Amino acid sequence: MKFELFYWPEIQGRGEFVRLALEDAGASYRDVAREPQGMKQMQALLAEQRGFAPPLLRAGQLVLAQTATILHWLGPRLGLAPANEAARARLNQAQLTIADWLTEVHDTHHPIASSLYYEDQRPEAKRRAQLFLRQRLPKFLDYFAASARTTGRISYVDLSLFQMLEGLRYAFPRAMRRLERRQPRLVALHERVAQRPGIRAYLQSERRLPFNQQGIFRHYPELDA
Amino acid sequence: MKFELFYWPEIQGRGEFVRLALEDAGASYRDVAREPQGMKQMQALLAEQRGFAPPLLRAGQLVLAQTATILHWLGPRLGLAPANEAARARLNQAQLTIADWLTEVHDTHHPIASSLYYEDQRPEAKRRAQLFLRQRLPKFLDYFAASARTTGRISYVDLSLFQMLEGLRYAFPRAMRRLERRQPRLVALHERVAQRPGIRAYLQSERRLPFNQQGIFRHYPELDA
Repeated sequence: MKFELFYWPEIQGRGEFVRLALEDAGASYRDVAREPQGMKQMQALLAEQRGFAPPLLRAGQLVLAQTATILHWLGPRLGLAPANEAARARLNQAQLTIADWLTEVHDTHHPIASSLYYEDQRPEAKRRAQLFLRQRLPKFLDYFAASARTTGRISYVDLSLFQMLEGLRYAFPRAMRRLERRQPRLVALHERVAQRPGIRAYLQSERRLPFNQQGIFRHYPELDA
Repeated sequence: MKFELFYWPEIQGRGEFVRLALEDAGASYRDVAREPQGMKQMQALLAEQRGFAPPLLRAGQLVLAQTATILHWLGPRLGLAPANEAARARLNQAQLTIADWLTEVHDTHHPIASSLYYEDQRPEAKRRAQLFLRQRLPKFLDYFAASARTTGRISYVDLSLFQMLEGLRYAFPRAMRRLERRQPRLVALHERVAQRPGIRAYLQSERRLPFNQQGIFRHYPELDA
């Protein structure tokens, strides 16, 4: 099956969690909004109310939005989730917890509104980021470390945990150097994912956009205190 | 099947979205944390890493966390979702958009950190709430109004939309009076859900906790400007 992904063409963002699954599986897909005229197609899908926001995935007649919904549907089709309903539900639960975590990362630099510039909410961002790094980030890392599997089959949740570590290292290098010392299982999982052939090839390709200051993970040194 | 719900006993919160589904279907369930010693049982489940945070649902051997994961699993079992995978995915997509919306509602009164008192983030809350009411709330209402069905079978997403309107009317009565005038379909859906026998009986029972200032929906008049 040929998949079509629709996501903002200039950032990794939420679309990256879907891309990693497609790339790991070697699936055939188009990254539509990065093609000429692709943004118009994405805007048309959104205007049809097919989703509140990107990413969107089209597979034949089916159009799905919401990262976790897309991954729940894709998982068994890409060999990245079991077919069993209870096991799929547990992966979905983990992915939703990653989604909550990601929103908290985003809100460290945009605590007041996404529609405002970072520069217009800098004192608030500093306060939120400080509490995030002190209270929330260790809690999320501990939670996922407890269930991180360093053997057995890889799931789309493992790929998403890889991406969380990638992004957090970019955004908060100082905090992560300190926190990762206590998380050998997460570090091992990250390394295991990085070595998978599909992921390795993807990370070296130009399809992998670099992190930047428009994405969800942003590096503002003053927030990484 | 006998279900066991675990959620903070003093607020509606996220647990309410699960409660409404169970109550509408007339399902047999225990609201465990509201029973004597129930909080200990919930803390034990959390300590076993069965979830990052409440709500949790136990059904036999299965324990699930994350509201949308629980509802995706419960939906077809309660007659509140079709069995078809694509239709279930679309409901899950909508429920995740409601979850994003709910987080934005919560963050109007806690933009800096959940661990701080409202009183310690009041100026930030005022700024965030103002932008939420002006930009985000109308966008969410428009999005869900476009797909709100006022005939046909009720799904768990419809019940959740009912709850969003209930909570928003409590938290932002002034803003909602103004915004609802343009949303007759959502108002009709809310009324339709309120008249369902299971929901009507539930709302009149003492099982329905009142909204209060510890929950996700809170009424601070200064935020409802």
